[in-house]
Amino acid sequence: MILTVTLNTALDLTYGVPELVPHASHRVSDISERPGGKGLNVARVLSALGHETVVTGFAGGSTGAVLRELLADLPSRDAVPAGSGPVADDPAPASSPAPAPAPITDALVTVAGSTRRTIAVVDRTTGDTTQLNEPGPLVSADEWSALLARYEELLTGADAVALCGSLPPGIHVGAYAELVRSARAAGVPVLLDTSGEPLRRGIAARPDLIKPNADELAQLTGSRDPLRATRDARRRGAHAVVASLGPDGMLAVTPDGVWQASPPAKVLGNPTGAGDSAVAGLLSGLVEGLGWPDRLRRAVALSTATVLSPTAGDFDRAAYEELLPCVGVEEHTTAA
Amino acid sequence: MILTVTLNTALDLTYGVPELVPHASHRVSDISERPGGKGLNVARVLSALGHETVVTGFAGGSTGAVLRELLADLPSRDAVPAGSGPVADDPAPASSPAPAPAPITDALVTVAGSTRRTIAVVDRTTGDTTQLNEPGPLVSADEWSALLARYEELLTGADAVALCGSLPPGIHVGAYAELVRSARAAGVPVLLDTSGEPLRRGIAARPDLIKPNADELAQLTGSRDPLRATRDARRRGAHAVVASLGPDGMLAVTPDGVWQASPPAKVLGNPTGAGDSAVAGLLSGLVEGLGWPDRLRRAVALSTATVLSPTAGDFDRAAYEELLPCVGVEEHTTAA
Repeated sequence: MILTVTLNTALDLTYGVPELVPHASHRVSDISERPGGKGLNVARVLSALGHETVVTGFAGGSTGAVLRELLADLPSRDAVPAGSGPVADDPAPASSPAPAPAPITDALVTVAGSTRRTIAVVDRTTGDTTQLNEPGPLVSADEWSALLARYEELLTGADAVALCGSLPPGIHVGAYAELVRSARAAGVPVLLDTSGEPLRRGIAARPDLIKPNADELAQLTGSRDPLRATRDARRRGAHAVVASLGPDGMLAVTPDGVWQASPPAKVLGNPTGAGDSAVAGLLSGLVEGLGWPDRLRRAVALSTATVLSPTAGDFDRAAYEELLPCVGVEEHTTAA
Repeated sequence: MILTVTLNTALDLTYGVPELVPHASHRVSDISERPGGKGLNVARVLSALGHETVVTGFAGGSTGAVLRELLADLPSRDAVPAGSGPVADDPAPASSPAPAPAPITDALVTVAGSTRRTIAVVDRTTGDTTQLNEPGPLVSADEWSALLARYEELLTGADAVALCGSLPPGIHVGAYAELVRSARAAGVPVLLDTSGEPLRRGIAARPDLIKPNADELAQLTGSRDPLRATRDARRRGAHAVVASLGPDGMLAVTPDGVWQASPPAKVLGNPTGAGDSAVAGLLSGLVEGLGWPDRLRRAVALSTATVLSPTAGDFDRAAYEELLPCVGVEEHTTAA
């Protein structure tokens, strides 16, 4: 089982409008609603890859109740049968049948405050998105203690854990560092995917892996040079760093070597959720005992297939299977 | 009891953002949530004026459940003690003590679809509002029949009825005309406050009163001349027409005469809900047996006090009591 932790879960709403005009009134032409927060997105992709996952974090209020209802529907709702994507005429090779989606178990801790909504307003003329994010519930000290207890218990059955996303109000900035230390004490590989001060503090607790994007890496290290910044992040405490460089793929600096993985071609689409799909690729590869090059291939193929999907945050299964053998991975011969 | 009908109720969310920048990501700095739709807003003001009200219309899904919870809290939540406004040092005259808020009874019909949300994104730098309105649930023929049955039953106990706002998907454009005819058959005075084709059809069913604003009037009649357009609207079937002219007050064309009512001074503020407060003023005055000049005074004072309120859609009780005796009402001597 893979455990994902989402301290600031969200009900993600997408509103399509014909054109977004500030200070005007808009009739929303299409609405979609899904359970969100990075760890829930990671769990959805892990489930589609056939990995049983458990999600914890906080949920509360009426929005939390809706999120949990949608979460309960997930494995069947989001399952994409193999070959149902745009290349359906080209059957998937017999060597890679799509696994059945694995269950996602809700182990969220109920809080008194209300889970946040996020609203992505998509201008259907330009395709541009304007994002509105509620801050999330104020979490009390008792609720944080309840989460810690739940987390310790879940770690005993976990093959790996991902700590994902922003902190809700009331949670101390060293929260992720605390969760990283518990995972390491329990001997469970831990991936940390957050930003800002929670990332800086979390790294110092020596997670197995972090997956910053270029902006997060620059904010952490002050450098926009990918190799320099990634190495710097590793020196700060992360055992391995996989930097996601958008259309340029990923750069991994690890104790075993340095690799650059690149998609076969640049693709156009919606990058929402691409980073979460990469996390799912890295974690599933780790649990399956794959080496770094194969983990990176999977992460790059999954995130590219997410950009290509017509639904924000989903990945296009057929595109994923086509891309997987075409991701280029190059080893750097300089020392990590 | 006054009955208000809101076929397309809404959970009204207000999101404050430091500055709205299209295509950027925003952290919402403040959130408020209230039950909305015009008829619910009218009921809230009637309650504050001491009039018992019953609200009907449609509600469904998890958003409908939240709306009904908030509605159940309303009379106590929104009660504003007399003199609690900005002129608290100047006690209200003994002759006009603030009435205790009267109960609002939920007689909404449950539907399978989900009640809509509306989101007002307020730019805290400029004060400008960008509005996003979900369309509302698809209402089935059976649900519409259930509403009609509930409405007929409620009319037997009603002193007046207000039909308010837009139609949800699935409701035929002549729906308000049908509701106007039932009210007239039951001998209950009926006010219609909607726009577009539902207004045009509804007027032909001869409601006692309509309260269009300048835009709605122009859309209906093709004229931007207030007196000409208001008279035209009356000829189409409305027994009386009260046109709300924003900062210029109101123009009433009735079987008893023509009046123009004006606030003592132009005020700055948020006009959200000013029209709904005017409807509450007109209806409460009718039920109390006031003449047209006093009804108009109340409607203008209430809508001006709504513009002045720091909370969108609420009225400032102290300002209302100060404004009431200062509203100018002038009778036109030309024939209606």
